[in-house]
Amino acid sequence: MSDDSSRTVRRGRSARREQRTAGGLGLGLPYITRGIPIYDVLSDEGADLIEVQADTILQEIGLEFRDDTEVLDIWKNAGADVDGERVRFPKGLLKEIVRTAPAQFVQHARNPARNVVIGGNNLVFAPVYGPPFVTDLDKGRRYGTIEDFRNFVKLSYLSPWMHHSGGTVCEPVDLPVNKRHFDMVYAHIRYSDKPFMGSVTAPERARDSVRMAQIVFGEEFVDRNCVMIQLINANSPLVFDATMLGALKVYAAANQACIVSPFILAGAMSPVTVAGTLAQVLAEALAGCALTQLVRPGAPVVFGAFVSSISMQSGAPTFGSPEGTLLLNGAAKLARRLNLPFRSGGSFTASKLPDAQSAQESAQTITATLLSGVNFALHAAGWLEGGLCSSYEKFILDADQLGMMHVLARGIDLSEEALAMDALREVGPGGHFLGAAHTQRNFESAFFRSQIADNNSFEQWLSDGELDAARRANRIWKTQLAEYSGPELDPALDEALLAFIAQRKASFPDSNI
Amino acid sequence: MSDDSSRTVRRGRSARREQRTAGGLGLGLPYITRGIPIYDVLSDEGADLIEVQADTILQEIGLEFRDDTEVLDIWKNAGADVDGERVRFPKGLLKEIVRTAPAQFVQHARNPARNVVIGGNNLVFAPVYGPPFVTDLDKGRRYGTIEDFRNFVKLSYLSPWMHHSGGTVCEPVDLPVNKRHFDMVYAHIRYSDKPFMGSVTAPERARDSVRMAQIVFGEEFVDRNCVMIQLINANSPLVFDATMLGALKVYAAANQACIVSPFILAGAMSPVTVAGTLAQVLAEALAGCALTQLVRPGAPVVFGAFVSSISMQSGAPTFGSPEGTLLLNGAAKLARRLNLPFRSGGSFTASKLPDAQSAQESAQTITATLLSGVNFALHAAGWLEGGLCSSYEKFILDADQLGMMHVLARGIDLSEEALAMDALREVGPGGHFLGAAHTQRNFESAFFRSQIADNNSFEQWLSDGELDAARRANRIWKTQLAEYSGPELDPALDEALLAFIAQRKASFPDSNI
Repeated sequence: MSDDSSRTVRRGRSARREQRTAGGLGLGLPYITRGIPIYDVLSDEGADLIEVQADTILQEIGLEFRDDTEVLDIWKNAGADVDGERVRFPKGLLKEIVRTAPAQFVQHARNPARNVVIGGNNLVFAPVYGPPFVTDLDKGRRYGTIEDFRNFVKLSYLSPWMHHSGGTVCEPVDLPVNKRHFDMVYAHIRYSDKPFMGSVTAPERARDSVRMAQIVFGEEFVDRNCVMIQLINANSPLVFDATMLGALKVYAAANQACIVSPFILAGAMSPVTVAGTLAQVLAEALAGCALTQLVRPGAPVVFGAFVSSISMQSGAPTFGSPEGTLLLNGAAKLARRLNLPFRSGGSFTASKLPDAQSAQESAQTITATLLSGVNFALHAAGWLEGGLCSSYEKFILDADQLGMMHVLARGIDLSEEALAMDALREVGPGGHFLGAAHTQRNFESAFFRSQIADNNSFEQWLSDGELDAARRANRIWKTQLAEYSGPELDPALDEALLAFIAQRKASFPDSNI
Repeated sequence: MSDDSSRTVRRGRSARREQRTAGGLGLGLPYITRGIPIYDVLSDEGADLIEVQADTILQEIGLEFRDDTEVLDIWKNAGADVDGERVRFPKGLLKEIVRTAPAQFVQHARNPARNVVIGGNNLVFAPVYGPPFVTDLDKGRRYGTIEDFRNFVKLSYLSPWMHHSGGTVCEPVDLPVNKRHFDMVYAHIRYSDKPFMGSVTAPERARDSVRMAQIVFGEEFVDRNCVMIQLINANSPLVFDATMLGALKVYAAANQACIVSPFILAGAMSPVTVAGTLAQVLAEALAGCALTQLVRPGAPVVFGAFVSSISMQSGAPTFGSPEGTLLLNGAAKLARRLNLPFRSGGSFTASKLPDAQSAQESAQTITATLLSGVNFALHAAGWLEGGLCSSYEKFILDADQLGMMHVLARGIDLSEEALAMDALREVGPGGHFLGAAHTQRNFESAFFRSQIADNNSFEQWLSDGELDAARRANRIWKTQLAEYSGPELDPALDEALLAFIAQRKASFPDSNI
């Protein structure tokens, strides 16, 4: 991956400005770089066992690639054993192939101050992806529209803790399926200047996404740099379908990043155990990641794992479960051993509203996301109802929590100023520190300021209207959208994008829709 | 600490029975033994720095012991520099003194199957401690009564995830201050058979607690074994007051465990930084722990740390903050380096109701409690409003989360059955695992079953009454209390306890109250 230095000149200056303005905390950085260790539940010996089992799965069972012959030919040429759509892999082949993938890469934003580094010790937060429904406390649950879509793009743009604009922040169900990708990609470019994701629902829509990126960044720049990242789900167990393979081929060929993600609810799409599921995750992710390298060696790719459990009583998906946490943590280690960036986690919940269940489940997942070494966290804010619903209030609640993750990620400052021996000397036994010189010097940036937490007395809270956290979040998103002021977009570039969209939309047989 | 083997004979059998009944998960154990690594944010070099600073605090500033001369004489004799109530400590003195403290010890319960091991790699959960108020969704917030107290004892008894009966689960404000300790200790003994805590609000009340324990366990047994654990707070910064010192002396002399806890809201009672606060925590805890060893070498003692932050805007205490998490994690490492058991954490929140804020803050703290290596977690369930209020619904929500911590603590099973190669072979690409033989063998115990989470579809949830998690918790605690059936208590023992209480109460000048 080459980089364009002229595009990154402004980064230092803009990042510093942002640092000053983000809540006075100096934390509004374009992404997190961990100052704390990674937490590993799985031992090296445990990871060895899982890897051996993944090898067995790949060699003996294999995967199905439900594509035209192109992918199957690629595998044949690479030395795999192809039998119809079933592909089996000699031991070590896939590991060898993925060596050409970068361990980390820059995803460029149209504002270079927003560029993110995906991989290494870094963590990028992106919003909820995929829900057909949206909800808020005023209007309740309904199908998403392009207006909702734009709103979630705006809220992501406004949050100092959200690094990425994401992709399908909700499905704009009011637009025709075959053309809504234009409006979605355009909204990300128009209403935000953070990095974004392209369409994966058909190869032609993937190509449209690349073309729009080329209008923004220039053809040559796009060919040399990652400017979009895409979600390529496996159809677990052990299947990649034609839609996902089509998108994967387009994006990898265009040198754009694929997140190859097994999509697993353990017990249904994988064994009912953590260890068995991890072996399957590794087999599926390794095969998909390797395919991108056969399409274009060196193309950026991310080892993904969307893994949770189901209720064995009802079959319903469960989120924020302890098994989900162990799966996330174990998969992160497996990706690290392959030297690949890792995507997992987010703010998951099965709850239908922004209540205690939703907060508890989301807190479990997002903490695991930080500690386990995740590099790219989709669904970091706004997720409700097992991913069926984007919630305005949940977005605000989650974003606040992401802010806390920024503070945790810094670890413990051990500077002389932080050790504060002068304060201890000044105050002494029985005194208090509020008026100490050290406190006066440091109080403004000392502690994270939550937008959501009500820390007041019960009496104050009563007189403030007895609002719960969801009601306070409701006020915040409405104020934010009312006061939204977007990033500048070069009018010539805007015009070019709109002209491209109009011309492409007009070319569809159902252009009157 | 000696142990009485005849008392532990039943433990294996009872624990196994419990294992079978607790939600079918085999997790209802008397305490957690971690199968996962401890997570350390603070490096060894960082801990060295903090220790050096604590030495400086102890040598140069010292602590105040606001007691009669007994404690000051103890310090003088131990080689400390005593100047009025101010005591300064030569470098290394306190570390040398605490070497006689056990690294772990058994706290005996009246049912030996409920004995807990405090220290080492173990984690014991105890309920909320201290709130004057109680609240539930039906009756709202009011002063606690002895009926509420008994209810929280019963709820702790009934939860398979709560290892301990705790102490002041709420203040029974309807009873006179000078006599309520009798009713509190009696409630723990009568309505539960889990281990419990004694009174610390006056030396005489501490002695009463010890006498009641002697009635239950026998004088000699109590002298040789820990049967009660007590919360001894420092009056931070750098002060121990007469009440706490009085209780400490009684319990240490009786060979009962003291938890010596700096009680710190950073920014007010300590420097506004994590590192400075950690140095103060270490100085205070070390001094208090050492004092117990001077009173009775070998007496069980726990390094405590109740540490959170304040809002630097309003001065209000904040909980579940990232700084609180870093403080907890760092203090745990400092305690481990002294080879002392560590108390911290719980399910903290500043919220006034069991909403998203309360769940998010509690999840942050309880996860940190598990991962940081805490041995004794007071306030593990029921805490609301910065500790001013015991909440029935919050208790149920928190207890459910404690269950999840049990699963996380086990780590990843890497047995052949867990690797589930047979399931992967049976199902293959594109299949599903619900009907696989391996799934059928394992589904009952595969995943944690939350009592609280609603994982159903939106439509099902609607038809179930659109309850949020707090409303579901409300139903659960009412059912549990309605169906409560307590442990047996030997009638002779009960009679002896009641006779002691009646005789002692009658001896008070205000005995007519």
